[in-house]
Amino acid sequence: MPASLTPVVPPLLDTPVALIDVPRMQRNIQRMQQRMNDLGVRLRPHVKTSKSLPVIQAQLAAGARGVTVSTLKEAEHCFANGIDDVLYAVAMAPGKLNQALALRRKGCRLSILTDSVVAAQAIVAFGQAHDAPFEVWIEIDCDGHRSGLLVDDNALLEVARLLTEGGMQLRGVMTHAGSSYDLDTPDALQAMAEQERLLCVTAAERIREAGLPCPEVSIGSTPTALSAQSLKGVTEVRAGVYVFFDLVMHNIGVCTADELALSVLTTVIGHQQDKGWIIIDAGWMAMSRDRGTQRQRQDFGYGQVCTETGEWIEGASVTGANQEHGIITLAAEDSSDITARFAIGSRLRILPNHACATGAQFPDYHALDAKGNVHTWSRLHGW
Amino acid sequence: MPASLTPVVPPLLDTPVALIDVPRMQRNIQRMQQRMNDLGVRLRPHVKTSKSLPVIQAQLAAGARGVTVSTLKEAEHCFANGIDDVLYAVAMAPGKLNQALALRRKGCRLSILTDSVVAAQAIVAFGQAHDAPFEVWIEIDCDGHRSGLLVDDNALLEVARLLTEGGMQLRGVMTHAGSSYDLDTPDALQAMAEQERLLCVTAAERIREAGLPCPEVSIGSTPTALSAQSLKGVTEVRAGVYVFFDLVMHNIGVCTADELALSVLTTVIGHQQDKGWIIIDAGWMAMSRDRGTQRQRQDFGYGQVCTETGEWIEGASVTGANQEHGIITLAAEDSSDITARFAIGSRLRILPNHACATGAQFPDYHALDAKGNVHTWSRLHGW
Repeated sequence: MPASLTPVVPPLLDTPVALIDVPRMQRNIQRMQQRMNDLGVRLRPHVKTSKSLPVIQAQLAAGARGVTVSTLKEAEHCFANGIDDVLYAVAMAPGKLNQALALRRKGCRLSILTDSVVAAQAIVAFGQAHDAPFEVWIEIDCDGHRSGLLVDDNALLEVARLLTEGGMQLRGVMTHAGSSYDLDTPDALQAMAEQERLLCVTAAERIREAGLPCPEVSIGSTPTALSAQSLKGVTEVRAGVYVFFDLVMHNIGVCTADELALSVLTTVIGHQQDKGWIIIDAGWMAMSRDRGTQRQRQDFGYGQVCTETGEWIEGASVTGANQEHGIITLAAEDSSDITARFAIGSRLRILPNHACATGAQFPDYHALDAKGNVHTWSRLHGW
Repeated sequence: MPASLTPVVPPLLDTPVALIDVPRMQRNIQRMQQRMNDLGVRLRPHVKTSKSLPVIQAQLAAGARGVTVSTLKEAEHCFANGIDDVLYAVAMAPGKLNQALALRRKGCRLSILTDSVVAAQAIVAFGQAHDAPFEVWIEIDCDGHRSGLLVDDNALLEVARLLTEGGMQLRGVMTHAGSSYDLDTPDALQAMAEQERLLCVTAAERIREAGLPCPEVSIGSTPTALSAQSLKGVTEVRAGVYVFFDLVMHNIGVCTADELALSVLTTVIGHQQDKGWIIIDAGWMAMSRDRGTQRQRQDFGYGQVCTETGEWIEGASVTGANQEHGIITLAAEDSSDITARFAIGSRLRILPNHACATGAQFPDYHALDAKGNVHTWSRLHGW
């Protein structure tokens, strides 16, 4: 495993805390932005991963255009901080249209999403009643993963026509190849990226051939964005977790260990020597209950253990978690005296399975810059 | 399944929200308090479940004495609200002694926990240096579940002596039979409750026979507290999740379906009709990633689906979850037209696997009282 390039953590931070390695984060942002520039598409980062303004601002400063959000609270927060092109990437519930309208009336270019005739009808009815020509994306199902209309579904043109003739602005089609998370070879990832591109572009062409406008084609997931060989016909890519990466992404094969920018700093609070257990003050409340690596090529339990300075300890993972207790076990062949090697009061870093889920457990991040200074970056919680 | 006694949810609540059924919560509180009264022990509720002052106050009003906390932030919050007997039930990290001392100096009767000679030495050294006679519990391992000293470990008397001779106040011994969560028959639960009691009482007797003080014996988990036949020698019981109960407790067999007091109110946002999927706006960010029922007698996925008024829909569970999307599937034999029966915009309630984990995803609860009024109860987040 690569040596850490990370600055040393100041001694007075209480634990558990969510640490961002800022130099790594900046490199991750540059890497994705450069790739999108080379492929000739705009990058619209999904801010559900960080939910934190300094992170979002770093993405925009590097060249991102607009943001993707998972809640209207994120949209409001972004707009309050000067970010006015916001895609809310969850199918619009009719009950949330009021909140969306309020944001648009303040000047936010909020666009919304639908994948059904029923929801499109609700958007049109509400939009007409409030003289509000919403900008709407149609969600395409490119891989059977979750939501969206199939490209050959009759409802695709019906929804496009309904929105357009109802006075709404059809912004384009969008999709998310969520099943890319199940892959772990370059060939399979490239094929999935091409499937995501092709089906979404085809959906746009179908709409255009019917004489309806479909200016944009928005696709994306971190694994496909980093694997696509061509993005012909695509106007923008959405991706989120690349900003921090995590063990799930590492197992998929789209990042290296020294690109993992988020970790949980924790303190050793005890041992069960007979069992080889090291007890830490980061349980599931800190790590989250996400076990995303459970069915991948390497199961990291609740996280991979690193030294306080970020060096990966091979074979050491958090194999058990209660609310405020984590249990670390070492590789089977490791015969260390754990009470000496991991002394009570000493600190470790735990790399999470899933950065989005682990980040959500904390009210703020502690961002460690190249000089070893720590900045507190708040993050949104709730809806 | 029993009919719901729950009042109807007001129409304007945005989703997802964490709903507390207050009449059910009050019955749960009464049930546990009455049991502890009948068994002749004090109840010291673990507030890590709710982290919310109105819930804690309802527990104290019913007769609870003092609280158990999982973080010093909870301790500070309780003390700031007039609750001054607080047991911090996680082995004390030396780095947190300053924060504990500050609370004690303000007048909080905060007691702390240790299960090792090394940590006890750190407490004594710090206590002596600051002229602070900490009140300390020794944690006993009664079931190999996590932390604690075995009752026959030489370190038990060594720690007791070290603390006492070092000028600290040995408050007593405590244990938590966390492995009761793996059981699901009354006989096994009663046996585990007796094991928890007997080993902790035996540890106290060992310390007393060595001529050292050990005034208190504190045990508890919700399953064992509700199963114990005798609590002879025990002075207090700690339990947490009984205040809301959840599907894990339901599978263990210590509560009925109409005692589940916490649910997530959600809105239907789409369908994949070919697959029988109903898509809702409660994903893992709302439900948490806790899959506690996965290895129990019935796997509820990410939660059991109920109607908006709380009626259990047999065989309907949240079988998939992304960050803001949940996927509901029905029982295999159910041939409902899902788009009509679960229309877009309609609302459902999801009962969680694990109330502690689901509650933690929300900045506040929406507490629904017997008259159908909703109160916003904030809860703590972070450390």
